Amino acid sequence: MTNKNALFDAFKQTKYQVAGHGPRNIQVLKDALENVDGEQESDMYGNGKIIEDFQDKIANYLGKESTVFFPSGTMAQQIALRIWCDDKGIKKVAYHPLCHMEIHEQDGLKKLHHIEPVLLADKDSVIRLEDVVNMESDVACILLELPQREIGGQLPDYQTLERISAYCRNNGIKIHLDGARLFEILPYYQKSAAEVCELFDSVYISIYKGIGGIAGAILAGEKDFTEKSKVWKRRHGGDLISFYPYIVSADYYFDQHADKMNQYYEEAKELAAFFNECGSVSTKPNIPVSNMFHVHFDMAKEDVVPVLLSVYKETGVGLAGNLQETSDKKCYFEISIGNKYSTIPKETLRKVFQMLDEKVK
Amino acid sequence: MTNKNALFDAFKQTKYQVAGHGPRNIQVLKDALENVDGEQESDMYGNGKIIEDFQDKIANYLGKESTVFFPSGTMAQQIALRIWCDDKGIKKVAYHPLCHMEIHEQDGLKKLHHIEPVLLADKDSVIRLEDVVNMESDVACILLELPQREIGGQLPDYQTLERISAYCRNNGIKIHLDGARLFEILPYYQKSAAEVCELFDSVYISIYKGIGGIAGAILAGEKDFTEKSKVWKRRHGGDLISFYPYIVSADYYFDQHADKMNQYYEEAKELAAFFNECGSVSTKPNIPVSNMFHVHFDMAKEDVVPVLLSVYKETGVGLAGNLQETSDKKCYFEISIGNKYSTIPKETLRKVFQMLDEKVK
Repeated sequence: MTNKNALFDAFKQTKYQVAGHGPRNIQVLKDALENVDGEQESDMYGNGKIIEDFQDKIANYLGKESTVFFPSGTMAQQIALRIWCDDKGIKKVAYHPLCHMEIHEQDGLKKLHHIEPVLLADKDSVIRLEDVVNMESDVACILLELPQREIGGQLPDYQTLERISAYCRNNGIKIHLDGARLFEILPYYQKSAAEVCELFDSVYISIYKGIGGIAGAILAGEKDFTEKSKVWKRRHGGDLISFYPYIVSADYYFDQHADKMNQYYEEAKELAAFFNECGSVSTKPNIPVSNMFHVHFDMAKEDVVPVLLSVYKETGVGLAGNLQETSDKKCYFEISIGNKYSTIPKETLRKVFQMLDEKVK
Repeated sequence: MTNKNALFDAFKQTKYQVAGHGPRNIQVLKDALENVDGEQESDMYGNGKIIEDFQDKIANYLGKESTVFFPSGTMAQQIALRIWCDDKGIKKVAYHPLCHMEIHEQDGLKKLHHIEPVLLADKDSVIRLEDVVNMESDVACILLELPQREIGGQLPDYQTLERISAYCRNNGIKIHLDGARLFEILPYYQKSAAEVCELFDSVYISIYKGIGGIAGAILAGEKDFTEKSKVWKRRHGGDLISFYPYIVSADYYFDQHADKMNQYYEEAKELAAFFNECGSVSTKPNIPVSNMFHVHFDMAKEDVVPVLLSVYKETGVGLAGNLQETSDKKCYFEISIGNKYSTIPKETLRKVFQMLDEKVK
């Protein structure tokens, strides 16, 4: 009999973890601050060198005219869609059924902005060109999430992206990128961030996924768009007097991790292959297209937990802190590769998957 | 001929400043982190020991059942009023014409929540009992800001507060405290925070006024109320994965400054008296009732700037970094006493006011 948090507790005790950059603890901030001059002045309500320099740096990286730092992607994306809706005078947008706004934001888009979503594509697939072309509603904006996180981080092929973008631009529809994991998809597409962003009128990126910062988001677009977003940021209560704790750490970890996405992508493919060699286990996607994937068990959660517990105990390698149940009473967990994976000795990894294969057969 | 920022630049060069706790720079965060264990885990979307402990500590201090940490007062207060409006089914609230929501938030309350304000009292006065009793509209909630910042930090007498509170409760109107500077008024009222908060159904306090933290706010009330506020916090995009940089510093500076409000209040009265001894200068209020007041000159801004520049240069004491113009072409600045005032040698202060008096006569 294991208690409810047994898996989480055991995971936290493991010496190695396959996912992430390491624990989310205060040392993350301390490390980022260590070589920063204490005399450096705080930003003040969105102004000041510290925030403007970072915004300019990311604008340059994304190839966009202007960017604005936001406390969260939730805030940044609602505001982006609101601006496009107001511009066009239509309070409708289109996005995937498992879009973050649809399932994780307590309906902020509807409750605060009264914007109605049109759901594109089946929830188990990525949005295709025909989903966009066959849409019956007139919408102000289409949001694409790359990769589509809730289905394991799947991606359309690049040509599809280009075609959707061209269709939107030919039809007066704005196209917004949920690029929470934009950095993470560049190795698969073999494109620069600026090349991908060029297909979109507005772009959100997260500071604390692959980049490994503490919190925060960037919204990018033309100056006219970002200036409007600042007004809405104040309305939302997101125009803080000081963002520098997030910005200093965002800048520090951007420099450390932005160039390591290819490594994470290659390691994700390697790790997914290990899982797929085990009986009753499969990954989604089968071959990852970013640093992330989902690990599905063809078994019930209560049968998987003891297996994982024994693997963690025997090998010191943690695979996941919790398991999500699916509608058909099976279970899965999510993996996003960061710095931790490469610290695991290959011999130890082999032992993990040998054990896992034996126990889930 | 002085350039636009000459006063601000000269102020930043001064050795002493009469207001505040010191520069808003990264050292503020470094100091707060110095003795914090790096192994301590981050909060996660509003949960975790680090955020819950701080929320409990402040709940206890305020005598409220529950509190929630918010990124900003703008967000916390809009949400408080929205909850009371939804509860009562009336989208109207009453507040002062110079309420923060009315003049500093880009109309977030109206644009996001569609709540209509009823403006109580003349803009140069605090809200009186008769303003509340004679109100013709049916409102869900009344907001009182203590002290009323935009008029120099004025306060109603305590009996008036008690009467307004009793009236609201007898008439089914919720009463919300904009307590951005709640700590700062306790010495004048000779009350505990809990005694003042008992008069209100919901309370917002700021972390970065007298407390001297980096950013953030607390919303307090009964558990049912604060649980609803968490849902709205997520909708606003304010439910960040990690608030610990703000919380660690809030806790650190709360412990340093919360008990010093009586000192700041006494110093504010002393400093205001110095100003009032100078010709053409007067403070609002004449005798401060908190750590803050406004310094008004019966002179035009362009005539005051050179006076201040010479005082700063001669004495090394900075009085203000900028001057606000009034509708009658005079000018004023705001002072909030913090740790810096007591560092100024008395002899130097005397010289400041001797010079000021001579130059503005």
